[in-house]
Amino acid sequence: MKNIVLTVSYDGTNYHGFQKQNNATTVQELLEGAIFEITGEKSAIIGCSRTDAGVHAEEYVCNFHTNTKIPADKIPFALNTVLPDDISCMSGRVAEEDFHARFSAKSKIYEYRIWTAPHKHALSARFSWHYPQKVNVSAMKKAAMAFIGEKDFAGFMSTGGQQKTTVKEIYDLKVSKTGDMIKIKIHANGYLYNMVRIIAGTLVYVGNGKIDKNEIEEIIASKDRKRAGITAPPEGLMLKKVFY
Amino acid sequence: MKNIVLTVSYDGTNYHGFQKQNNATTVQELLEGAIFEITGEKSAIIGCSRTDAGVHAEEYVCNFHTNTKIPADKIPFALNTVLPDDISCMSGRVAEEDFHARFSAKSKIYEYRIWTAPHKHALSARFSWHYPQKVNVSAMKKAAMAFIGEKDFAGFMSTGGQQKTTVKEIYDLKVSKTGDMIKIKIHANGYLYNMVRIIAGTLVYVGNGKIDKNEIEEIIASKDRKRAGITAPPEGLMLKKVFY
Repeated sequence: MKNIVLTVSYDGTNYHGFQKQNNATTVQELLEGAIFEITGEKSAIIGCSRTDAGVHAEEYVCNFHTNTKIPADKIPFALNTVLPDDISCMSGRVAEEDFHARFSAKSKIYEYRIWTAPHKHALSARFSWHYPQKVNVSAMKKAAMAFIGEKDFAGFMSTGGQQKTTVKEIYDLKVSKTGDMIKIKIHANGYLYNMVRIIAGTLVYVGNGKIDKNEIEEIIASKDRKRAGITAPPEGLMLKKVFY
Repeated sequence: MKNIVLTVSYDGTNYHGFQKQNNATTVQELLEGAIFEITGEKSAIIGCSRTDAGVHAEEYVCNFHTNTKIPADKIPFALNTVLPDDISCMSGRVAEEDFHARFSAKSKIYEYRIWTAPHKHALSARFSWHYPQKVNVSAMKKAAMAFIGEKDFAGFMSTGGQQKTTVKEIYDLKVSKTGDMIKIKIHANGYLYNMVRIIAGTLVYVGNGKIDKNEIEEIIASKDRKRAGITAPPEGLMLKKVFY
């Protein structure tokens, strides 16, 4: 059997995340259905991360095992004839036998987008959190720096995650603003359940003054979920890139 | 009566352009319907340009006359409760009596986006032309410069336009590439029917070698539509900004 790696982009608005669930449409379910349609084989796709309902992916990575004779680089053409418009396969290649989209991942980049104008923008509403308030971006930039490094992020996790450790290393965390759009870009070796959305919500609380920009280190050290900010909504979150 | 100016963003995928038509849903029709719903008045909206079916707008400008008591800056809030998700009103203000969204416009910026990767990308497919071929971007950049200036663009017009003159001034025309996405950004004092899409199609023909990069001046001077490239499809086109 060949181990095939695919990169996939999707607009998560209409899906209950990547991972298969009962009674809810997910990206994995549609991908497995498309693979069945083109190969005639039932496959179990391994995804690089769960991603929540409503979250998007610019370059999601997943793998599956198959006996199909379709060459790996032709699989995207075949899948895209079957997949809906909001999911597309961008590349396919044969990987080493032990490649595992989740366990082999070394790090991931996520981006969280916040639209701060008074009114929503039709072109970015699907891909950003509409937060129509003045926020202090330079305070957010300052606060962002306190997250960088190897730390115990137990306070930045929703219940329901299945993690062996709550220690993760954030390599980089940048806040930028162009016009009315704020972007938070984060690169880490791993993420706890809802970690990016809680960091985004915490940085917004720094931006609106509910949390002091110098308080972040203390909040992290407290490991107390209640001291961090809210869990920002899913539509602002995008998986950008996975490194292996 | 007050003369109200609105800025509006829309994803044009599901619309037959801005301007009202029989038997086809347009942005103008939905906007006028929303204005009727909030003011009880039948209004005729004046748009800054027609924009074709499938074309998008980041900041479209339009105006209408009304006796409504709703303050101009509250109108967007009211309209957005009625408008569908792919159209949103971003600002409202009272303008001088003689302001006219089309005739008062001094210049406009459009952007045309071309996605050159082998497979479509779920997140940009609605907003770009999928052209899965290698193109020579530096030849396109060179060719773009030949368009700049006040010229007779009669060869870069589809039939069906109602223009008094085919002479327009292009202030700037820039080709850039980030990853697999090529962007053509154009700023001109006015546009002939389909002019941006024909310029985009011509530049792509330069990129794939069907037109020589040094031939553009001659093609413009010929005023011959057949010597220019194809009319690029509407989904890649975005109205970015209107100047008054």
